[in-house]
Amino acid sequence: MSNKLPVGILGATGIVGQRFIQMLEHHPWFEVTWVAASDRSEGRPYDEAARWRLKTPIPAKIAAMTVSPAKPKGAPKIIFAALDAGIARELEPQFADAGCAVVSNSSALRMQSDVPLVIPEVNGDHIALIDKQSWRSKSRGYVVTNPNCSAIGLVLALAPLHRAFGLETVMAVTMQAVSGAGYPGVASLDILGNVIPYIAKEEEKMEEETQKLLGTLKGSSIEPAPFAMSAQCNRVAVEDGHTESISIRLKKKATMEEIVGVWNNFRAEPQKLKLPSAPAQPVVYMAAADRPQPRFDVDAGAGMTTSVGRLRKCNVLDWKFTVLSHNTIRGAAGAALLNAELLKAKGYLG
Amino acid sequence: MSNKLPVGILGATGIVGQRFIQMLEHHPWFEVTWVAASDRSEGRPYDEAARWRLKTPIPAKIAAMTVSPAKPKGAPKIIFAALDAGIARELEPQFADAGCAVVSNSSALRMQSDVPLVIPEVNGDHIALIDKQSWRSKSRGYVVTNPNCSAIGLVLALAPLHRAFGLETVMAVTMQAVSGAGYPGVASLDILGNVIPYIAKEEEKMEEETQKLLGTLKGSSIEPAPFAMSAQCNRVAVEDGHTESISIRLKKKATMEEIVGVWNNFRAEPQKLKLPSAPAQPVVYMAAADRPQPRFDVDAGAGMTTSVGRLRKCNVLDWKFTVLSHNTIRGAAGAALLNAELLKAKGYLG
Amino acid sequence: MSNKLPVGILGATGIVGQRFIQMLEHHPWFEVTWVAASDRSEGRPYDEAARWRLKTPIPAKIAAMTVSPAKPKGAPKIIFAALDAGIARELEPQFADAGCAVVSNSSALRMQSDVPLVIPEVNGDHIALIDKQSWRSKSRGYVVTNPNCSAIGLVLALAPLHRAFGLETVMAVTMQAVSGAGYPGVASLDILGNVIPYIAKEEEKMEEETQKLLGTLKGSSIEPAPFAMSAQCNRVAVEDGHTESISIRLKKKATMEEIVGVWNNFRAEPQKLKLPSAPAQPVVYMAAADRPQPRFDVDAGAGMTTSVGRLRKCNVLDWKFTVLSHNTIRGAAGAALLNAELLKAKGYLG
Amino acid sequence: MSNKLPVGILGATGIVGQRFIQMLEHHPWFEVTWVAASDRSEGRPYDEAARWRLKTPIPAKIAAMTVSPAKPKGAPKIIFAALDAGIARELEPQFADAGCAVVSNSSALRMQSDVPLVIPEVNGDHIALIDKQSWRSKSRGYVVTNPNCSAIGLVLALAPLHRAFGLETVMAVTMQAVSGAGYPGVASLDILGNVIPYIAKEEEKMEEETQKLLGTLKGSSIEPAPFAMSAQCNRVAVEDGHTESISIRLKKKATMEEIVGVWNNFRAEPQKLKLPSAPAQPVVYMAAADRPQPRFDVDAGAGMTTSVGRLRKCNVLDWKFTVLSHNTIRGAAGAALLNAELLKAKGYLG
Repeated sequence: MSNKLPVGILGATGIVGQRFIQMLEHHPWFEVTWVAASDRSEGRPYDEAARWRLKTPIPAKIAAMTVSPAKPKGAPKIIFAALDAGIARELEPQFADAGCAVVSNSSALRMQSDVPLVIPEVNGDHIALIDKQSWRSKSRGYVVTNPNCSAIGLVLALAPLHRAFGLETVMAVTMQAVSGAGYPGVASLDILGNVIPYIAKEEEKMEEETQKLLGTLKGSSIEPAPFAMSAQCNRVAVEDGHTESISIRLKKKATMEEIVGVWNNFRAEPQKLKLPSAPAQPVVYMAAADRPQPRFDVDAGAGMTTSVGRLRKCNVLDWKFTVLSHNTIRGAAGAALLNAELLKAKGYLG
Repeated sequence: MSNKLPVGILGATGIVGQRFIQMLEHHPWFEVTWVAASDRSEGRPYDEAARWRLKTPIPAKIAAMTVSPAKPKGAPKIIFAALDAGIARELEPQFADAGCAVVSNSSALRMQSDVPLVIPEVNGDHIALIDKQSWRSKSRGYVVTNPNCSAIGLVLALAPLHRAFGLETVMAVTMQAVSGAGYPGVASLDILGNVIPYIAKEEEKMEEETQKLLGTLKGSSIEPAPFAMSAQCNRVAVEDGHTESISIRLKKKATMEEIVGVWNNFRAEPQKLKLPSAPAQPVVYMAAADRPQPRFDVDAGAGMTTSVGRLRKCNVLDWKFTVLSHNTIRGAAGAALLNAELLKAKGYLG
Repeated sequence: MSNKLPVGILGATGIVGQRFIQMLEHHPWFEVTWVAASDRSEGRPYDEAARWRLKTPIPAKIAAMTVSPAKPKGAPKIIFAALDAGIARELEPQFADAGCAVVSNSSALRMQSDVPLVIPEVNGDHIALIDKQSWRSKSRGYVVTNPNCSAIGLVLALAPLHRAFGLETVMAVTMQAVSGAGYPGVASLDILGNVIPYIAKEEEKMEEETQKLLGTLKGSSIEPAPFAMSAQCNRVAVEDGHTESISIRLKKKATMEEIVGVWNNFRAEPQKLKLPSAPAQPVVYMAAADRPQPRFDVDAGAGMTTSVGRLRKCNVLDWKFTVLSHNTIRGAAGAALLNAELLKAKGYLG
Repeated sequence: MSNKLPVGILGATGIVGQRFIQMLEHHPWFEVTWVAASDRSEGRPYDEAARWRLKTPIPAKIAAMTVSPAKPKGAPKIIFAALDAGIARELEPQFADAGCAVVSNSSALRMQSDVPLVIPEVNGDHIALIDKQSWRSKSRGYVVTNPNCSAIGLVLALAPLHRAFGLETVMAVTMQAVSGAGYPGVASLDILGNVIPYIAKEEEKMEEETQKLLGTLKGSSIEPAPFAMSAQCNRVAVEDGHTESISIRLKKKATMEEIVGVWNNFRAEPQKLKLPSAPAQPVVYMAAADRPQPRFDVDAGAGMTTSVGRLRKCNVLDWKFTVLSHNTIRGAAGAALLNAELLKAKGYLG
């Protein structure tokens, strides 16, 4: 019998749920033993309930698994949650209350003051907020979240700069892949040969999450990073990979070599702890004039590395550059998985 | 016999040359009597020399026309030029020297101090620079240019704001259509499902042309507009229409209603003169949350109107919004054509 | 007051409903006075209820119209129906029973023995089946249908050949546009950079409808055309326009010139009657080696012309060629509209 | 020092040349020691000369290699050739004449009577033709070719049926990926949102190569398979993977289960010899109604497996089905590589 920790997936049939299943197939620490989804799917074999949209096949063990109701009873103690925000707001607290460690990709509770919003390379110390959660004191359950897919690549690129030079201003324009909208998500008639200059609530999430992620744990809450931040979010006809055009102003002046060095040398707790899903190099600077590009670079570091390129002077702020990050791996399922690995390494998974 | 003015097209077989032919087919003032292209095409019927890429058919008269050598001898006195920059730099002065009015879409001479870079709605007065050109005094010939396809939509959106409130800072991120690169231009293997975060020399052109266009004619030269400007240019899988995410700071504070009003009420000389290619409304603000989009809005005003949308507060500068403009109509052939119409209305075409 | 015939649209908010509204905006004979849709839309202004997906704006009069319930009470006597098959099967008979002329684009009743399936250029005489319908004798109401979007372009190309030379065998492979699946229809994640070799029930419809359309009215029923027919249907990443690779065997041998001549000279009742939506030339043969293509040719004849090209010998049957037809104009709304025009011309619309 | 066989790549900078380099990076038998390309590239480091278009990085050893002139002098004795047909016709004989084993992906010599056109699973015995080549007797050099990318997937699907039941008729309609045209190849303006119903010379190649591949070695030549074959070739907006809609008539009647069984159980010499690039299962039948699809299935068997699906009755012939094959792996570089592996296993590589 496996001595891996049993984990469950809430929202297992959606695009992010599928990525969880794919990434957990050969995981050294965790084993999926429970998949749950909406009423419509409940009681059906997983491979009938899910419209599988990934290139690798459904793991045989999962394919045959019966989809459970989305209720804590019978669920394992570690839950990866990939629910829509509305449902997450209702269900995640139920699972935490029932004693589960809920590692969530949903936006529902991200900005709640006692819920850590975490990128392990950036602000692993925010995990301490768990102990402020009422669920924790009651049942040992808790909720930990990861950021929006548009914020995470950006924050990985910003964090080493913020530490080294101090961020004063950040402007971001995104060109986001359709997989970020789930499945069926964006209609083909809406995006073939088109750009949609609007993603509901995305800009607000990107701005406030960036500031919470780069913020400071002060007592029982997070003090947001004090820099000014503005985001504009667009949808483009790309399958996977959010590309972002960024401009920043730094507090301390830096040379191009210093900035590139800070990126390429950035290593953090996940790399030191050798967490299974941690990329060897979280941020890679590409010297070619026309990179990164989704076609070529989205899978860097098995989808967990943020690629950066085109660093050059900005006439308005100090520097501009391009960021690319895989939105359903590093930006969703992989983000939560790395959070869970950090939690385990720190003794939060029993 | 036609009493229209005979015009010639230099670079007639390329994408912009084709747009010239399309837009001139039923033009009330001008008639294409001469088409010229590279050595390879010379002497062949136009419909064999050109790989026609537009949805309307080649006008029958043009189809049968023999492609002339790209030399002033035998050319009409009005020349629309759609040449690559390298060739333009060599040929355009030859035609001007030979007495032609060269209405150019090329970047070659745009930033030359005595060459007007003109959008008729914005800076028609810059045409006066013509009289500073040595060609003019020698042979009555001259060169007038229009801006890069990424600059023109932006400047049409900025000009009324600059007049009303004063621009202090402009940041632009573009998502540009493939037709902007000509034909064959962008390889399908490079752009299907992809974003390319680089277009050679585009950011520099966009920045310096914007400042020249919004600059002031002082004696024999143009004093560039003094605001700070930064551009980031990306290529996306769109056929026609450049979408741009813009942030600005204004000198004089303005409300959302004032800004929208200034855009929608913007009318200028081409509208007053009722120039044949002038759109009734040069800038249209779209209230829907997710517009403008290339699929739906690129052909607004027969491709001559700039569509603007998503005006909202910016946390860093004052305002952000989205601009869309047709890159081969308003951004190239239509731009030159409107320049020619303005020249005629002002008596510069003999 | 208008002396146009008032018409209603059932299923007015979908993609085909929108095309009806677009095509009827300036129609000389018909005027939309009633739009109906599902319960969800009922009672709301049309422009709120519909997610308008066409490039021309919603006609102002329709935008402000309140969406009616999908019931015969209060509906005009001429109904264009653009309902899903399941709902059409239930509702269309109700409207016919209530005395309406139901001109339907749905597949629900197409193959019913007393329901005419009509392309005016091909089998206008099948309209006589109306008089066999029980609704007709009871209330003067009836149902007339047009074929599936994949069948109609093909049948327009086949009909003149069938008349001139006799069809013995037809093999068709389609590459169909996403708009054929309605809105939201095909998910972008399913079709970007992909081909889907399956469209539910499409092959069966295409085969049986082709044979009914080219069949013969015998007494009170249609005897299907006796040739063998096989179809394979694929979905591709094209917005509008179904492309089809066809092979045929003819009973009577023909030369290439004869076949092209038969296509280009094909004129039928709609052309003779000068029906408002009839294209001047229903079938156009294109001589260029690489045409027809959706990008360039889908809008031929305002979307009502079928383009044919690449006629060449087939090693297995006699001839092979490519057919292109606009799937939401000639293949849906335009098809029904032309049917209604024929009905009016023949005195079936009161 | 490596005891692998040194190999060279002619046409190393193109798309197929790049695939050779990618597939040979960790090859157990072969090692790239020489890369050659056109004059333009000669003398430059490979990573400067090639515009690398694959998702894995250029192997470091190759990146630094100097591009050699495309001449036999100094070349290794095993040459993978990925040249355009015109150049191949001139250069491949020179290399064979100089004693090289030329394993070619070019169409130039495929149909020459003494040149084997080989798919190792299908007609490995045709390799014996090598001994008829004049180069062989002179210098021990020879040329072996693999088929066109549109033919190879089809023939892999047909071969087991032909053996078991006998083919009488084959009709094929292809939907081919843009990578089949090389780089830059298809212009994005030509294919975005479009289908091109024409690929120069492709139908002829597909027809005649299929018959040669399934033909019989009789003395010193190949007797083509006697069935009738007709192909129609289209280009679609897919990056990699040719999808084909096929209809066939068999001599001996077969049930669906028999056909699927014959496909799934098909194993041949490469599988028995465990050639390094041979897929475990050359043909896989997919039961899902909407498969195979390029997005999901193109990389089956590391791109060396042909996926088949949608087997169903044909009203005209006997059966119809869909075939998918990776056009630059199984359809080009992988095809040649498997040929080379077969040659080595059979003692033809010294």
